[in-house]
Amino acid sequence: MKKRNLFYAQSGGVTAVINTTACGVIETARKQPARVGKIYAGRMGIVGALREELVDTGKESARDIAALRHTPGGAFGSVRYKLKSIRESAAEYQRLIEVFRAHDIGYFIYNGGGDSMDTANKVAQVAKSMDYDITCVGVPKTVDNDLPITDNCPGFGSVAKYVAVSTLEAGIDIASMPATKVFILEVMGRHAGWIAAAGGLAGKDRSEPPHLILFPEVPFDEDRFVAKVKESVERHDSCVIVASEGIRRPDGRFVAESGTTDAFGHAQLGGVAPHLAEIVRGRLGYKFHWGVADYLQRSARHIASKVDVEQAYAMGKAAVEMALAGVHGKLPVIVRTSDQPYRWKVGQADLAKVANVEKTVPKKYIAADGFHITAACRRYLAPLIRGEDYPPYKDGLPQYVKLKNQLAPKKLPAWKG
Amino acid sequence: MKKRNLFYAQSGGVTAVINTTACGVIETARKQPARVGKIYAGRMGIVGALREELVDTGKESARDIAALRHTPGGAFGSVRYKLKSIRESAAEYQRLIEVFRAHDIGYFIYNGGGDSMDTANKVAQVAKSMDYDITCVGVPKTVDNDLPITDNCPGFGSVAKYVAVSTLEAGIDIASMPATKVFILEVMGRHAGWIAAAGGLAGKDRSEPPHLILFPEVPFDEDRFVAKVKESVERHDSCVIVASEGIRRPDGRFVAESGTTDAFGHAQLGGVAPHLAEIVRGRLGYKFHWGVADYLQRSARHIASKVDVEQAYAMGKAAVEMALAGVHGKLPVIVRTSDQPYRWKVGQADLAKVANVEKTVPKKYIAADGFHITAACRRYLAPLIRGEDYPPYKDGLPQYVKLKNQLAPKKLPAWKG
Repeated sequence: MKKRNLFYAQSGGVTAVINTTACGVIETARKQPARVGKIYAGRMGIVGALREELVDTGKESARDIAALRHTPGGAFGSVRYKLKSIRESAAEYQRLIEVFRAHDIGYFIYNGGGDSMDTANKVAQVAKSMDYDITCVGVPKTVDNDLPITDNCPGFGSVAKYVAVSTLEAGIDIASMPATKVFILEVMGRHAGWIAAAGGLAGKDRSEPPHLILFPEVPFDEDRFVAKVKESVERHDSCVIVASEGIRRPDGRFVAESGTTDAFGHAQLGGVAPHLAEIVRGRLGYKFHWGVADYLQRSARHIASKVDVEQAYAMGKAAVEMALAGVHGKLPVIVRTSDQPYRWKVGQADLAKVANVEKTVPKKYIAADGFHITAACRRYLAPLIRGEDYPPYKDGLPQYVKLKNQLAPKKLPAWKG
Repeated sequence: MKKRNLFYAQSGGVTAVINTTACGVIETARKQPARVGKIYAGRMGIVGALREELVDTGKESARDIAALRHTPGGAFGSVRYKLKSIRESAAEYQRLIEVFRAHDIGYFIYNGGGDSMDTANKVAQVAKSMDYDITCVGVPKTVDNDLPITDNCPGFGSVAKYVAVSTLEAGIDIASMPATKVFILEVMGRHAGWIAAAGGLAGKDRSEPPHLILFPEVPFDEDRFVAKVKESVERHDSCVIVASEGIRRPDGRFVAESGTTDAFGHAQLGGVAPHLAEIVRGRLGYKFHWGVADYLQRSARHIASKVDVEQAYAMGKAAVEMALAGVHGKLPVIVRTSDQPYRWKVGQADLAKVANVEKTVPKKYIAADGFHITAACRRYLAPLIRGEDYPPYKDGLPQYVKLKNQLAPKKLPAWKG
């Protein structure tokens, strides 16, 4: 088996642990010098491959690569760049193979969510059809936890921990002060409510915050929402709500599309939390507060889940092992073998089966009234936030690494696309 | 010196470490059984005293009192209840003294911000004028860091750490993905910009996030803001903004008063972050994200500053020592004795001097263009976020204590006020 070069790219929204996966990829590859020559990473993901901007990770010290394990964000850059069908994006696929050929890439590792697994699958097919010898492997990633087959996705456990801890702390705050009755925390999740569901772990049951969880899977009914808020305030003297950014009205419109205009007649920005707060203000009159976690939730490496970190690393390691074993067109996945105690192992799945399929929160995980999680959901989620994996600190701040990201010399003409 | 009972109350907005102060008060008082009998806490702060709802902290185990050190929020409840002048609120002051007398309170410890120090001062004067033998001591607290005389306030160091860490992490996220150019983080601070200033610690200088800081002390000029955002995006390919909720236009109106109406003609809720985002969208067209930290920033005990925790405890301890020494009408304060290395000690100040005086961010701490902090500000802020003091965890969540909060038997008729 020849020594070949490896190309790794990050894709889609970054997470607290996608660099942990990168660390797993690079450290595992570095341990196989007889099989792996250069280890390149795409500068800005797959766009880096198209532009022939290949980061030579060999220029980074072992210490800096190790530091990726505890550094959030995408160390090499990441983009949302979905290649279309093989026919529609023929030029791009051809270019990718040209770049791979020019740099003797024998292993392509693509680290992203559903769209990226689709791209990796298409690249795998094109390479085969062009008789280019390369093993293409995906690596799962997404805070949204919406990839099928894999029990959970790297990136999710940490955002789940962030949301559960934040909900717990905000709940304590609001319970301390009688004037404010309602707190709304808006979290990510445009189509799948896994992140909002994770907020449910903050309390042992519905009598503790969060009192209400709003899922994209459950059509938003304003009257029922108002009734539930009122009931919670009357029963518990407060109502803590974790709301997914992707909740929709029965007609399908996102609640965050506020439909308002500003003083200049411009369409006003929405935001689910302020919109829900306006409903509370107008229909109930309670004093409220609201927060929007936005990027904070997915970049919060300071409160990452140890389980998530270990799984993210394991996925990167397994992807390289699969590539070296010639396992083409697949990705490693997490397989849960037991709930209590929590046990998991690395499995494999076809890219084609994971691509373009969204795993939303199933009915069995959502309470009958649509506003909370079930015991089954709790059993599923609970292990994913366990354990702490703090980054090193200096002078009060986490020590996150910034790589040199030195590019390899180009060999091809510039990409015009 | 007779054995007397102690009454402690929390007041105003809670923080990540006001319970640490409570821990310092109770543990220190418990070590003086010859001087301190019962240790009561006000259920819902000073309102607890008026209602004669005194929590008997003696019913709490040593373990649970110790757990207050790492628990956010207000364990006994807190309110914003500002007593007016001695003449206007005569009935309330009389009632307080009646309650104190009925329960033989010889030491009154009032833990809050500027308004609370005013209240404590008035209670001290009334007690003296009514010849009631009690030593009244304040304990400083506020996330806003706006009390004069004390070098900094317990609660601030932790929210400063939260904002600096969050800004650092969000900055890494936005640098990873080229499409989004602008990120706005809205933080607390209606009149003083200390919390926003702390965001400035995320980068070593202005070339790193945060690129812009918006202070309440600097009138908000939309044109200059737009120019600065454009300059940052052109120079650094992104603009990370930390904005205080209290920024105002030159005419004095809060920027958060959006002046918009919704589809029903109702005044729309504001929020500084969405408002600034709308400006970016309308005037520059950059893709943006925004977050609002709200309660999350002040309840984030999971990322508290060790310096803050130690100072909060020390203030509680010192307050009890002052009370036992008969030091009436004062509060303990933090005195900085050196920057590098950072050293501090406990001092004292008159309640009258601290009450009703707001310490805003001075000009020497704000950059000449009004959009960042100076080196002097950095030197002041840097030590306050140092050190980590993680709470204990179980199953992925911090173990925060919930006290029994058993009330002492009442002796007086109900309070009608």
